Amino acid sequence: MPARDPAPYRALVHPPGARYVEALDQRALPHAVVNARIADADTAALAIRRMWVRGAPLIGAVGAYGLALALDRDASDVALAKAHAALDATRPTAINLRWALDRVRAAVVRLPERERADAAWREADAICSEDEAINHAIGTHGLALLRAISRRKGGPVNVMTHCNAGALATCGWGTATAPLFLAHAEGLALHVWVSETRPRLQGANLTAWEMGRRGVPHTLFADVAGALLMRRGDVDIVLVGADRVAANGDVCNKIGTYEKALAARDNDVPFYVALPSPTLDPALPSGDGIPIEARAPDEVLAVTGRDSYGQTTTVGIAPEGTRAVNYAFDVTPARLVSGLVTERGIAAADRAAIAALFPERFR
Amino acid sequence: MPARDPAPYRALVHPPGARYVEALDQRALPHAVVNARIADADTAALAIRRMWVRGAPLIGAVGAYGLALALDRDASDVALAKAHAALDATRPTAINLRWALDRVRAAVVRLPERERADAAWREADAICSEDEAINHAIGTHGLALLRAISRRKGGPVNVMTHCNAGALATCGWGTATAPLFLAHAEGLALHVWVSETRPRLQGANLTAWEMGRRGVPHTLFADVAGALLMRRGDVDIVLVGADRVAANGDVCNKIGTYEKALAARDNDVPFYVALPSPTLDPALPSGDGIPIEARAPDEVLAVTGRDSYGQTTTVGIAPEGTRAVNYAFDVTPARLVSGLVTERGIAAADRAAIAALFPERFR
Repeated sequence: MPARDPAPYRALVHPPGARYVEALDQRALPHAVVNARIADADTAALAIRRMWVRGAPLIGAVGAYGLALALDRDASDVALAKAHAALDATRPTAINLRWALDRVRAAVVRLPERERADAAWREADAICSEDEAINHAIGTHGLALLRAISRRKGGPVNVMTHCNAGALATCGWGTATAPLFLAHAEGLALHVWVSETRPRLQGANLTAWEMGRRGVPHTLFADVAGALLMRRGDVDIVLVGADRVAANGDVCNKIGTYEKALAARDNDVPFYVALPSPTLDPALPSGDGIPIEARAPDEVLAVTGRDSYGQTTTVGIAPEGTRAVNYAFDVTPARLVSGLVTERGIAAADRAAIAALFPERFR
Repeated sequence: MPARDPAPYRALVHPPGARYVEALDQRALPHAVVNARIADADTAALAIRRMWVRGAPLIGAVGAYGLALALDRDASDVALAKAHAALDATRPTAINLRWALDRVRAAVVRLPERERADAAWREADAICSEDEAINHAIGTHGLALLRAISRRKGGPVNVMTHCNAGALATCGWGTATAPLFLAHAEGLALHVWVSETRPRLQGANLTAWEMGRRGVPHTLFADVAGALLMRRGDVDIVLVGADRVAANGDVCNKIGTYEKALAARDNDVPFYVALPSPTLDPALPSGDGIPIEARAPDEVLAVTGRDSYGQTTTVGIAPEGTRAVNYAFDVTPARLVSGLVTERGIAAADRAAIAALFPERFR
């Protein structure tokens, strides 16, 4: 049994026996800690779509509970299909969501209707605790990378991350952050470069908050400064999460990941991607086929934060009527990726190496 | 006599005969148009330091007028040296500032004290009108690039720019924008990708405003999306300004330029830098020697915009007490630059090509 994440916060809690889950409403972070109760499937869909919850593994877990909540109301085949489709449509890019929904459906579809809801709740719980265990395993493999850097150089290991692939994006430990939290726990000197991650500022709002809550030394930077920090020699390794990884190792992750990978390559900084295997999409030959979600332009046209009165306020940053695009993800070609840190170890970003670690996914 | 910039706004105006200048206070844009009267050298220094004015050529012009204003009060050698030093210290990276201050000093230092102030005003006026002429010439050379792309492809030419190398950064036309404004004026179909340019948002605040005022079709994007837009094939050319260009063609410009150059290279998008020759620093062998200004971290920790009541408001985006770095510039290696668009034509980004265009600067 791997260690449970000792964080003083959790993104998602299913109180034992309850027919609801509680999620941190991440839109309120870092200025306030607000819990949202999710007690029906529509609210689960809303929580995903409106990004109360975000992060591929967490979205999968909330989707799974959403399906259980739907079956609590109506466990018919029609209702199952409808809820599956509605939840799946909330975020087109996240592969874990589809994976989790399919898994819950497969666990219940052959059962009599009266047994389906309970089975769905059990399956969602299993998805959640497996996610935490997977992330802990990712952490141990990533930790080896950090220890090696620490042995080679004096002073703290400088890790750059992007967006939030933290405990807030998962059911515990986070993916890209698991190695950091384990390293920090064992006393390895560490400093984390946190990208602000426009437009939604998950780095400034969430990753900085997680690092602060756990006492990990960190510094925030504007996204545009990533390449300069690498050029100055201030970054030993880049470690990010992923929303979907194609069979050839192409990585779909938060918009801006590709630019950081380019900067890492130009400055000989190792660039690693941490991912739980549900993020793998063996059916997708390369990143070219990944649909890139375009979100509402107002996320680019405005910024939300805390004003001097302590109120959460949204400010417009462009002239009235300005047109904007807001692609949520980009694809980092496998050639720029030093390695994929998975729960079974580190694989090169190519089909053969990934298939060697996960042969059952590549039959 | 080259055409005057027909823009309905100017960053800096010296009313004929006046012993002051009027500058657009660019901190109020795009939500309000506020003019600031600069009537003494301290205010000129403040305007530069606090970024009421910004952009290498404009900073140079304001510095020049600042020296004239200082000489209006006291034209002694001591006062001249003191004002030169004080104005030069306001922005360490901008080469034009030093160039303009040196030029005004050289124009007055051998004159009797009573003639110095008038001569300084004349020299500052000359710097300003020469800047406008230089930018127009840059525009004609850059226009040839855009016409060539337009002939080759159907549909509008998609130009990506970064920060604001616009008329607001100069005494007229802008540097990177001069080709765009000339192209638009002659009816060439054009679409401009405007990067928001965190942390100070000069793209969202200023470039989007300039494009809007002149009717040039444009779309704002979060800085992190630059590489994806290029990968999608939505960008035909990148055209940016420069704060300082070393003898070998390394380009110091707004932080984030280097990442865009890397993205352009990876996607075979031509990457051009527009610069007036005062931005050249032949004394600097390469970009490695350029001092990179670190500004106050609160620019990264907060964002200023207009709230729903129409008030200019600053919102914090990170947890209380978060540490941040705020480097204002980065250096794009010459190997990533397709060409330097100057008032004398386009040079490859290498010493020989630059020296061939500006032999008098490379004696």
